[in-house]
Amino acid sequence: FLFTMLVLNPSATAFLVDRYQQIRAHTELICRHLETEDYVVQPIADVSPPKWHLGHTTWFWETFVLVPHLPGYQIFHEDFSFVFNSYYESVGRRVLRTNRGNLSRPTVADVYRYRAYVDEHMSRFLAEADSNLIPLLDLGLNHEQQHQELLITDIKYILGHNPLFPAIEMPALSDTSPAAGKAVTVQEGVYTIGYQGNGFCFDNELGVHNVYLNETTLAGSLITNAEYMAFIEAGGYQHFRYWLSDGWAWVNVHHVQAPLYWHRVEGDWYVYTFDGLNPVEPDAPVCHVSYYEADAFARWRGQRLPTEFEWETAAVHNESLRWGQRWEWTNSAYLPYPGFTTADGAVGEYNGKFMSGQMVLRGASVATPDGHARPTYRNFFQPDKQWQFTGIRMVMG
Amino acid sequence: FLFTMLVLNPSATAFLVDRYQQIRAHTELICRHLETEDYVVQPIADVSPPKWHLGHTTWFWETFVLVPHLPGYQIFHEDFSFVFNSYYESVGRRVLRTNRGNLSRPTVADVYRYRAYVDEHMSRFLAEADSNLIPLLDLGLNHEQQHQELLITDIKYILGHNPLFPAIEMPALSDTSPAAGKAVTVQEGVYTIGYQGNGFCFDNELGVHNVYLNETTLAGSLITNAEYMAFIEAGGYQHFRYWLSDGWAWVNVHHVQAPLYWHRVEGDWYVYTFDGLNPVEPDAPVCHVSYYEADAFARWRGQRLPTEFEWETAAVHNESLRWGQRWEWTNSAYLPYPGFTTADGAVGEYNGKFMSGQMVLRGASVATPDGHARPTYRNFFQPDKQWQFTGIRMVMG
Amino acid sequence: FLFTMLVLNPSATAFLVDRYQQIRAHTELICRHLETEDYVVQPIADVSPPKWHLGHTTWFWETFVLVPHLPGYQIFHEDFSFVFNSYYESVGRRVLRTNRGNLSRPTVADVYRYRAYVDEHMSRFLAEADSNLIPLLDLGLNHEQQHQELLITDIKYILGHNPLFPAIEMPALSDTSPAAGKAVTVQEGVYTIGYQGNGFCFDNELGVHNVYLNETTLAGSLITNAEYMAFIEAGGYQHFRYWLSDGWAWVNVHHVQAPLYWHRVEGDWYVYTFDGLNPVEPDAPVCHVSYYEADAFARWRGQRLPTEFEWETAAVHNESLRWGQRWEWTNSAYLPYPGFTTADGAVGEYNGKFMSGQMVLRGASVATPDGHARPTYRNFFQPDKQWQFTGIRMVMG
Amino acid sequence: FLFTMLVLNPSATAFLVDRYQQIRAHTELICRHLETEDYVVQPIADVSPPKWHLGHTTWFWETFVLVPHLPGYQIFHEDFSFVFNSYYESVGRRVLRTNRGNLSRPTVADVYRYRAYVDEHMSRFLAEADSNLIPLLDLGLNHEQQHQELLITDIKYILGHNPLFPAIEMPALSDTSPAAGKAVTVQEGVYTIGYQGNGFCFDNELGVHNVYLNETTLAGSLITNAEYMAFIEAGGYQHFRYWLSDGWAWVNVHHVQAPLYWHRVEGDWYVYTFDGLNPVEPDAPVCHVSYYEADAFARWRGQRLPTEFEWETAAVHNESLRWGQRWEWTNSAYLPYPGFTTADGAVGEYNGKFMSGQMVLRGASVATPDGHARPTYRNFFQPDKQWQFTGIRMVMG
Ligand SMILES: [Fe+3]
Ligand SMILES: [Fe+3]
Ligand SMILES: [Fe+3]
Ligand SMILES: [Fe+3]
Repeated sequence: FLFTMLVLNPSATAFLVDRYQQIRAHTELICRHLETEDYVVQPIADVSPPKWHLGHTTWFWETFVLVPHLPGYQIFHEDFSFVFNSYYESVGRRVLRTNRGNLSRPTVADVYRYRAYVDEHMSRFLAEADSNLIPLLDLGLNHEQQHQELLITDIKYILGHNPLFPAIEMPALSDTSPAAGKAVTVQEGVYTIGYQGNGFCFDNELGVHNVYLNETTLAGSLITNAEYMAFIEAGGYQHFRYWLSDGWAWVNVHHVQAPLYWHRVEGDWYVYTFDGLNPVEPDAPVCHVSYYEADAFARWRGQRLPTEFEWETAAVHNESLRWGQRWEWTNSAYLPYPGFTTADGAVGEYNGKFMSGQMVLRGASVATPDGHARPTYRNFFQPDKQWQFTGIRMVMG
Repeated sequence: FLFTMLVLNPSATAFLVDRYQQIRAHTELICRHLETEDYVVQPIADVSPPKWHLGHTTWFWETFVLVPHLPGYQIFHEDFSFVFNSYYESVGRRVLRTNRGNLSRPTVADVYRYRAYVDEHMSRFLAEADSNLIPLLDLGLNHEQQHQELLITDIKYILGHNPLFPAIEMPALSDTSPAAGKAVTVQEGVYTIGYQGNGFCFDNELGVHNVYLNETTLAGSLITNAEYMAFIEAGGYQHFRYWLSDGWAWVNVHHVQAPLYWHRVEGDWYVYTFDGLNPVEPDAPVCHVSYYEADAFARWRGQRLPTEFEWETAAVHNESLRWGQRWEWTNSAYLPYPGFTTADGAVGEYNGKFMSGQMVLRGASVATPDGHARPTYRNFFQPDKQWQFTGIRMVMG
Repeated sequence: FLFTMLVLNPSATAFLVDRYQQIRAHTELICRHLETEDYVVQPIADVSPPKWHLGHTTWFWETFVLVPHLPGYQIFHEDFSFVFNSYYESVGRRVLRTNRGNLSRPTVADVYRYRAYVDEHMSRFLAEADSNLIPLLDLGLNHEQQHQELLITDIKYILGHNPLFPAIEMPALSDTSPAAGKAVTVQEGVYTIGYQGNGFCFDNELGVHNVYLNETTLAGSLITNAEYMAFIEAGGYQHFRYWLSDGWAWVNVHHVQAPLYWHRVEGDWYVYTFDGLNPVEPDAPVCHVSYYEADAFARWRGQRLPTEFEWETAAVHNESLRWGQRWEWTNSAYLPYPGFTTADGAVGEYNGKFMSGQMVLRGASVATPDGHARPTYRNFFQPDKQWQFTGIRMVMG
Repeated sequence: FLFTMLVLNPSATAFLVDRYQQIRAHTELICRHLETEDYVVQPIADVSPPKWHLGHTTWFWETFVLVPHLPGYQIFHEDFSFVFNSYYESVGRRVLRTNRGNLSRPTVADVYRYRAYVDEHMSRFLAEADSNLIPLLDLGLNHEQQHQELLITDIKYILGHNPLFPAIEMPALSDTSPAAGKAVTVQEGVYTIGYQGNGFCFDNELGVHNVYLNETTLAGSLITNAEYMAFIEAGGYQHFRYWLSDGWAWVNVHHVQAPLYWHRVEGDWYVYTFDGLNPVEPDAPVCHVSYYEADAFARWRGQRLPTEFEWETAAVHNESLRWGQRWEWTNSAYLPYPGFTTADGAVGEYNGKFMSGQMVLRGASVATPDGHARPTYRNFFQPDKQWQFTGIRMVMG
């Protein structure tokens, strides 16, 4: 249905068991240094408590794999479906998203027990899984990887909004070094967009189609903190003329003055990272900006953001484009490709129903799990969101 | 700047004076049968009091034409700039949009005096206007025409939300007859989008560029009330699966059950029009649906809305496409064309800053003034808006 | 039921007809200089459009007198009950209070026709009215007088929040002169509270009962603008310590800096009155303060407000107490007197259901109609309301 | 200042150390069976996370006793003042009340370390405390006891709003048995109100004064669940006529249908207690009703609630009045007694600033700590609050 079919053979099965265990373990690795209390809170609706992510990803395997496909499987706890369900409205009543942070039970220990119970059944199940389930299993693994990135962004939000600004060790996130690359030019012409490989992709990458592009040159480097500070110094947040109408309202209602996690302390800019509160590094790519900010910055520079089609074409046709440090806001709304169809049933709710009011981000970030990035990947968020590892790339001249 | 230049000659000037007077008179014609009280109220933030439209369009001429270009011009009243200013943040402080309905003064009579005063000066001014002002004058005339359509939609909202459901005579709006046409097919290939003529167009139609389209067939007729009722009967408003996530939230928060102005009376559907409250006509094209509703209807039918590029190509290349009864929601977000640039100064705020969170509508409606419609015209509203004369056209198969 | 019975005789009847006509005429006199537009708007939920007051008081006579007591009476318009009903939930569905300002129809002319129609029937009816209806008729007259005061306060709000600050002639409101009187002392002891006369009173004045008072001295004069300015100058609105917790939240949420209608213009205080925007008169009693402000002012002075029992006792037992310029906030919550009972039916909703979350005001104001004031009268508003003609009297020492 | 002075002697000091340790230990006893996660969440603004109560009561001792009075005392952590401060605006910037539930740090273990650190210093300090500190120490102990009751009500809210409805052992809360007593009559006359002993009392009990009461008979028993169910069955929540205007709005906005923690399961009423979800016991006194509900219930019965003066007089003069199971809503607003004065400084903020918009409750509840109840005690909450152990006592006939 959603994916190019794969041929299943013994090595594929073994590979699956292995990948399942690695990915599930990595989820828990991300949480290794959390205190129990850190798993529980939900400071804003966008952020889910870490224990919810741990439970929700587990519930996905239980609900969509074990219950329908493992004969005789007993669910771990009948109320967990209610607690850990998400936006899948076709699988029963949802917990209101904003209420997740009110739930002290199930405890963190209960959730880890739930994970162990499901993992045990999954490992047994995967050893003998039917080849035609591979697309579903692949979806589950990619779903878990998506929540790995959300775990990192949500943990950062929870700790970064605590008045104690606690530092914490977070695997593989030290990379804030500058990544200068060469500018990349796309020639005018017709290009093909969408995933054409035979591995996994999400449904929103399908509907391969042609687009016509004018000649475009993408900057080789992302905008740095120093460049963004120049926008702040120039009064970027004070002048309506740089902003979209909605963006200007957002700036004023929320008194936005800088990227998320930036704090002005006696005239200097500090930023919260997993290392605690430290001075902003001028050469690192700016992070945690909203689309409104990226767009205003571009207008201030007299430049613009690329479209998702320009970005994908540059990334696919030019191996020299360096990307992966920050999700890059594009000037494309998140809309279906021609020929996009919604799959039947719950898994089919996956992406299509969010195709309204969101902007596409391309690339990946330092929080994206290894092996989860693709040049055709379409990430998407509302234009006011800052809590992902988002950055800015300019179209030149 | 925004427009292809025109050569000015005596007949052009006479034509301008004439057009100015006709368009200004038409604005007042729309209000001819209003009671004084109808000019004043603002039931929701989207709807402006009719007297505000009358004043605001006049303020546009005064501020952008007479003050800078007519030597010695004395403004009518110094506070009117404050009261009738709009989204033009570069021209001083705005009246908060939601407060317009609190202002009993200036009175309706004052506003008509203001119009007469400005018209008198404009007529004198136009008789000797410089040819290089024609683009600005054209913009003013088109601005006034846009507000003519808003006057009609806002008057309808004001009267249609009054418990007395008053009927009123409204010029040229009797056309609710069905408009069946032949389906139109666009062949796969590269097409050019944007305004290429030498008359007036808005800045958002410029940035002529190529797009690549797959073969597409647009329905010859708009969706009728009868067809839409089938969606309602089938539980369209009760099943989340037809709806975008934001749309489903909108349905539930606002308890939406039908297009705007529809009322169920003892099992039958009635609709408010300028003729009062009457039974819904099955064969007329459905009107006053939001993008969310148009999109959900399409998904329920297993079809989809056209993109603005498919629509424009069909309308430009096939004269047989019948359009103009309803603004047609497209599946395109309102974004800049490649090469779009924002003009300097206040008039330049015109369109670009709304390019976020809105969907494009194409065509025109029975409320659109004569001579204001073009196949390249890009109208846009947030996806939850119902109060314009909006309808639905399907892509076949 | 609510009132001491009166003996009806011919002169009483004539007196009633006369009083009815005088009071009804006075209502219209208050509106004499309004523009049609001024009758329509509702800037905040507390303020009703003047045409609503005109219709609502008329609806009271129609609904509670003519319909039940005048055989064969035909109501003027069946929808008016819906439009002009108020908080009387037992008489059908209400128009939501905040929606009154959206209704352009019925027009002002319609409302005056409604008044004329009802007045004509009432005059005929009153000439032969049964003596046992006198309490109901008295209630209707007092109800109309209450709305006369509300008409004045609401018209002031509408015009005083218009950027043009229009002046208007308002009968009998010129009295802002200082009214110095002698302080009045109440001796310690038991006093009787409540209305004991044989004229009209509201239900909330009944339940005559004893209270025990300590010795108390009430100031002879109300707090003046000059005295209140000293509070402002002393940082009264900046220091939480003067304020009740709810009051401090109110100050901060609404950015309150001064009484309603005060504007600081280049360092000087101006105030809107029916004469337009003029400098604050230092010797006039301060007006348009909330209970929170009156209470904070008192705490800043190290004094306190009187209770309603102290106030009534002083006013009843000391004719030298000068009152009537401002409604005086007391430090008494609006609660039932011992033995208070709610009358059956709609008229019985009159006062009792508001006995929660409101504070009692005693006295009367320059906006109170002649003959409507009594020392036992209990007015009441929420502690944040400023739009009535409210002032401050201190308890000495 | 706030209290009658005590003579300090050695036994008093020993008694204080003992009482301090007992009360502090009891606070922790209440939390003995919580999971770490239960300490963290804040489902509504009224409810504080248990760890906040543990920290806040400790902060009180540190800030008001140790810092000013123990020479050389080092505060435990400089940020804790920020985190655990409360409504004491005079002691620095507050954490916004609604944000308490977002704070995962300090951890529960940190908070217990904070308690141990302060307790150790307090024990040393108390052994040699100056006699003139006794009022302050007494205030601290009573403050801690107040938070003990809040701990119980807040833990109940947290667990009772979890979809798993967890049961938990809570010391000394098994008493839901009926408590029938004899009706008590207060004779008409003058009575003295307020605390006149020489132990501890809160500032709001001072200002001893006389009141005049009519003869009143208070019911001997609280209203039972069975009696309250009769109100529900009779459509009590459906008919506006029983409700105060604000109460009726509250019922409709929040869809209130029963006391807090009641759930209708297949036609039967269940209630959450610390024993989990079980059928409502008909004979137990109704619990967790708002003032609006108590008042509506009384109006439905044709009875009324007592005033706080009737209640106190009955309790002081009749030892046979049985009270202490439920806080009893009175028909008295929370206002200062004559002669009430606010103490200087932070501790003086204690009670006075809440004297607006709240109703007085008298008595005590099963959640009130031993030794904390007095017949003159004035508890107070907004009229819509249900989460305290609140009940209803009627005035007879
Ligand atoms: Fe998910
Ligand atoms: Fe405009
Ligand atoms: Fe009324
Ligand atoms: Fe406290």
